[in-house]
Order: sequence, then structure tokens, then C-alpha cells
Amino acid sequence: MKKFFLFAALLLACAAVSAQPGMRRGGPRINDDLSVSFLVQAPQAREVAVDICNKVYPMTREGDGPWTVTTDALEPGFHYYFLVVDGFRASDPQATLYYGCSTWASAIDIPEAGVDFYLDKDVPRGDVRLERYWSPSLKTWRTAWVYVPAEYNSNPGKRYPVLYLQHGGGEDETGWTRQGKTDAILDNLLAEGKCEPMLIVMDYGQAGDFAKILLEETIPMVDSRFRTIPDAKHRAMAGLSFGGGQSWSIGLKHPEVFSSIGIFSSGMFGGVGPGAYAPFSVESQLPELVADPKAFNAAHDVFYISCGLGDPRIEHTRKAAEALKAAGADVKFSAWPGGHEWQPWRKSLHEFVQMLFK
Amino acid sequence: MKKFFLFAALLLACAAVSAQPGMRRGGPRINDDLSVSFLVQAPQAREVAVDICNKVYPMTREGDGPWTVTTDALEPGFHYYFLVVDGFRASDPQATLYYGCSTWASAIDIPEAGVDFYLDKDVPRGDVRLERYWSPSLKTWRTAWVYVPAEYNSNPGKRYPVLYLQHGGGEDETGWTRQGKTDAILDNLLAEGKCEPMLIVMDYGQAGDFAKILLEETIPMVDSRFRTIPDAKHRAMAGLSFGGGQSWSIGLKHPEVFSSIGIFSSGMFGGVGPGAYAPFSVESQLPELVADPKAFNAAHDVFYISCGLGDPRIEHTRKAAEALKAAGADVKFSAWPGGHEWQPWRKSLHEFVQMLFK
Repeated sequence: MKKFFLFAALLLACAAVSAQPGMRRGGPRINDDLSVSFLVQAPQAREVAVDICNKVYPMTREGDGPWTVTTDALEPGFHYYFLVVDGFRASDPQATLYYGCSTWASAIDIPEAGVDFYLDKDVPRGDVRLERYWSPSLKTWRTAWVYVPAEYNSNPGKRYPVLYLQHGGGEDETGWTRQGKTDAILDNLLAEGKCEPMLIVMDYGQAGDFAKILLEETIPMVDSRFRTIPDAKHRAMAGLSFGGGQSWSIGLKHPEVFSSIGIFSSGMFGGVGPGAYAPFSVESQLPELVADPKAFNAAHDVFYISCGLGDPRIEHTRKAAEALKAAGADVKFSAWPGGHEWQPWRKSLHEFVQMLFK
Repeated sequence: MKKFFLFAALLLACAAVSAQPGMRRGGPRINDDLSVSFLVQAPQAREVAVDICNKVYPMTREGDGPWTVTTDALEPGFHYYFLVVDGFRASDPQATLYYGCSTWASAIDIPEAGVDFYLDKDVPRGDVRLERYWSPSLKTWRTAWVYVPAEYNSNPGKRYPVLYLQHGGGEDETGWTRQGKTDAILDNLLAEGKCEPMLIVMDYGQAGDFAKILLEETIPMVDSRFRTIPDAKHRAMAGLSFGGGQSWSIGLKHPEVFSSIGIFSSGMFGGVGPGAYAPFSVESQLPELVADPKAFNAAHDVFYISCGLGDPRIEHTRKAAEALKAAGADVKFSAWPGGHEWQPWRKSLHEFVQMLFK
């Protein structure tokens, strides 16, 4: 019975992968044991390897045939990878590509047995809208991706709360939809009555003075084009990694704009960069909490922090959450299996949105 | 004065390019004379070249430095290209990628002096919506991209005509938006009052029995989710290349569904494949026109055929259009500078939509 469910979950997950735009042909094959087999045509190359998140698998070939390799069993979740052909690092021409690692990266999405909350299901489907808008500060056109729940169109008199949801470093406004499956996660939760209907705005965050762009350009655009409830009580900000740092440095610092904050897998509390995890100090990095915990908690409906258990940021993040709690913050901390990748972020979003706008 | 306008047009075009998602860093540089300079990091490679639509430019390097090449002046328009590193054909890690050539391809968009109808402008902007829907015949989830004009949201009582617009072979549902700039073309025309407000549905056409999918799955989904006018008079079909063949074989053969047809750069009239341009015969390939030209014209508000002057399909297409005219069809034929690429398709769309739904 258990085996059947595993098989069914894998089938479902594979159907979801093959339905992705661009996944038209071969590409890597996920085996039953969650190892992955790659095949590359590079007849004149001397050396070919697959680099999956910096773990390198050298490929071999017979005669002039294609280069092949089968990996160890991979952890469930979404892993960027590259081909390295005679030292040239390229995405896989056979794979679906995603914007990540500051380029168009190939990726493999390993299903997790029994986990289907982010898969496409037969429920009312919302849509994701590409909103073009001019940024006066950047003097360029930008495109925000905006998730809109299915019920929005049939309730013309109803207004909605908004979650501003940021991608990680080297990703862009497409990440939370394409890699993260945000629309499927929300559609599935809404069908089960497990979260409030909301808009989710996903925009490109590694641009200019992003606080200025978000507060003075993006939010007014969204409030003018959509039926939002334009107050802090009905506005949340969350992000992963680099975007989690922005949720801290922009979202948490503007309680008059956002009442709920989610910080997923970010070591950058208070602006400390990745890898440079100076001991977290509530006193210096969140003095408003120390000064008046009651006022801080009253201003924040949800204050959520999460991290993957295999993420190098886990210890720093856990300690920061404990220090925040000790200082009186009503903070919710969650840890998930997995490293610094999309499976913990999908789970964080799935948990976070269920707490919002109650 | 002329030089200034050329310069201004180039500036505008470059701004549009840099605003594309994913175009965050280096990538190819378009020079003033419309040549393009490429730079590739591949220190261990023995041989590197740029392949632009099968014209190959070998790259050179000094010592262990990056590989570089500057092309001839390129024709204005959108050109897919690949890097060939020791015989391995890859997309350029530094470029914005697009789904084309049956893979995620790098591309360079050469501006055309004085031509700005497809650039982002300060006009009311519509949006493009990703619509997820289940295909019973394919047993998979599909994503249609749907252009919605800016006025749609503020006219809740108004219903709209629909253009079904298909991509070319090896492209997908993202092509008409990302490569084709459909939303900018429509937004600009609407701002000038030069076309009727309409929805444009862009879906993936190289899948299963596409006639069945389009007629029995996509159109009902669109008519149920959007405020359409669900009759033939207010429905058009157009496509480029492979998608133009589908406009012939599906759109023109179903006058009870579509009243206007656009066929851009397709040699495939009546199902003849590319490169196999058997002499076009109206009698065998469109007998309903020969039988009753008046009825045929009465059923078709717009019958539009176009091709690039540098496209190998031009002679076949021109002859077919002449034969159709000789048989009594009220067909409009346009030819544009350029080969088998997006600049003639952008111009074809721009002209075609101005004729629709009058």
C-alpha cells in the first residue's frame, strides 16, 4: 500500500514536470531510486561533466557515442545543474531552463514521496499575470508577475489582501511561479479552504534601490490595477534567501506598510551578508523589539522564519529565532528537510500563507 | 536630423532589450553599425564559434583570454544564435534565452531604425495571463498565455472578440509575447485607436491532435473564463510558419468557428511541409473557394497572407496568394523585408490586428 502511494506520488510529480513549458523532449531522466541519468551529445569534447549544485559527476562515453552518467540518489527538491564541456559551463540543451544562478540554468525537480501540495490538481485555477510598468527611478520597464486567485474574476465587488513575495539572489520575478509553483500551492490550499484568498506579487528584486521601487512604485501600481485592501493589515512581505533579507530590511522596518513578514532560508538578518554570520544581536539589529515587545507584536500579525535543516544557514537562523523569542517577539520558526533550495521554500510558503490575513 | 532619429530609435530599442526578464548582465553587444560583438569564457576549449541562423562566425582569442568575434552588420530583427564549443552546441550563458529551435535558445534583437511599434511605450498597458487548464485528450496540464487589453478590467459589462495566435515550429506559447512583443504591439495600437480591443490567446501548438485541443478544449476554456463574444464573427486565428499552416488547416477549414484568418510566413498551405513546396493548387487545396467564391468571402472577414522578402517561402507564398485571388478570394497579401524571423511576424501581426473585428 505504501509502495503504491509512493508510485502514485512519483507519477503525479512526473506529470507535473512534463507539463512545464519548454519540457518538450529528452532531458535528464529521474530513476526509481531518485538517481538521475544524463545524456549529452558532444562528440568532439575531451571532458564532460554534470555539476549539480557544485557536486561534479564526470561523464563517460563508449567510442564516439554520447556522454552519460547516473548520479547517486538525489534529495527530493529542485536542483539547478550545469554541463561542463571542456571547461565551458553551459545549461543543458535538452532540459527545461529556469532563471537562477544569475543565468538560464537547467534544473531537475526530484519528487518527494507523499508530498503533493505543489502539484497541479483538478481544482479551480487562478492565473498569473504579467504586469508591465514603468519605473521612474530605474528609467526602465519592469514586469511584475501577479498571482490572482480563481475567485477574483467572479467577485467584482470584493477586495483582496496582498503578499509581496521575493526570489533569491541570481533569480528573478519568474522564480516563485516556475520553480516555486506558487499558483498550484495557493490554488490547492484555497480549494481545501486552508488559506484566505490573496494576490501574490512577485517582482525582480536585485535592481537599484529596491526599497524605493517596492514602496513607491510597485505597491502603488498594484493598488491601482487590482482590487486590493491597501493597508498594512492586509499586506505581507516574504522572500527566500536574498529576498528574505529584503523582507527583514524592508518589510520588518516598515510596519506601517506590512503587518506580516516571512523570512525563508536567509542568513542576512539585519543586513549581514551570506557566509558572514556575525552573532545575531537583537539589541543592535531590531532595537524596536527590545524597546517595546508588546507594540512590536501588536504591529505584526505573523512573524515567520524558516530554514532547511541541511542549509549552512540553519544554526545562525535558529539562534536568531531563539534570540528574537527571548526578546519577546511572537515569532514562528520552522525547519524543513533539505538544503538551500526550493523544496523548503515551497513548504515555507505553504505554511506561511495559511497563517496570513486571518 | 535623420541621424538623431536613428540614434533615438536605437536607444529606445536597447532600453526595451535591457528591460527583458533575465537580461541582467553582459551578453552580446550591438554596435552602431548593427554588427554584434560576442565574448565567451571557455579557457580550455580548442575551438569556439557563434552560429547565427546557420551562419557560423569562428571566434579567436589572445593567449588564455576570452574568445571574441564581431559579426558583419546584421539585418534588423530577432535572430536566434548558439555557441559551438568544441562541437558542443549550447545557448550563451550571458544572454537572455527564449524558447525556440526546440530548445532554450540565445537570441539577439537588432533594432530597426524608425520602427518602434513593438517597443514598450508610456500607454495604458494590458497584461498577459498564464491560464492553467487540464487537457482531457493529452491527459496533462497546459498553460495558455492570454493577452488582455488594459480596458478589460474597467469594463466589467463588456465582452471581447478573440484572436487565437500560434507560434512557429520549435517555439512555444511564450513566443508571441517574449519574442513577438504582442502585448506592446496591441497596447500601442489601442492607445492610437488603430485596432479594436481584443483578447489574444497564445497556446502550445505542437501537441497531440491540436485541432481537437483547440476546438474542444482551449476555446471552451477561454469562453468560460473570459468575457468573450463566443461566435465565429468575433473569433480569428493566425500563426507564423508552422502555426500559419495550422491557421490554414484548422482555421480556414472551420468557418463556423473562425471568420478571420492570418497566415504569416508559412509554406505549408494545404499541409505541404516546409521545403516541399509542391505547386499550389486552389482546386485541390481549397475546393470550397472554387465552388463558391462569394460564399467563401462572405464567411471570411479577413483573409491575410504575408511573408518576408528574404524568406525561402516567398515565391511559393506569393504564387499561392495570386492563385487564391485568381480564384476569387478576397485575400490580402503583404511582403516585408527580412527572412524567416520575428521582424516580419511582428509587422504581420501589427497589420493583421488592425483589420480585425471591424
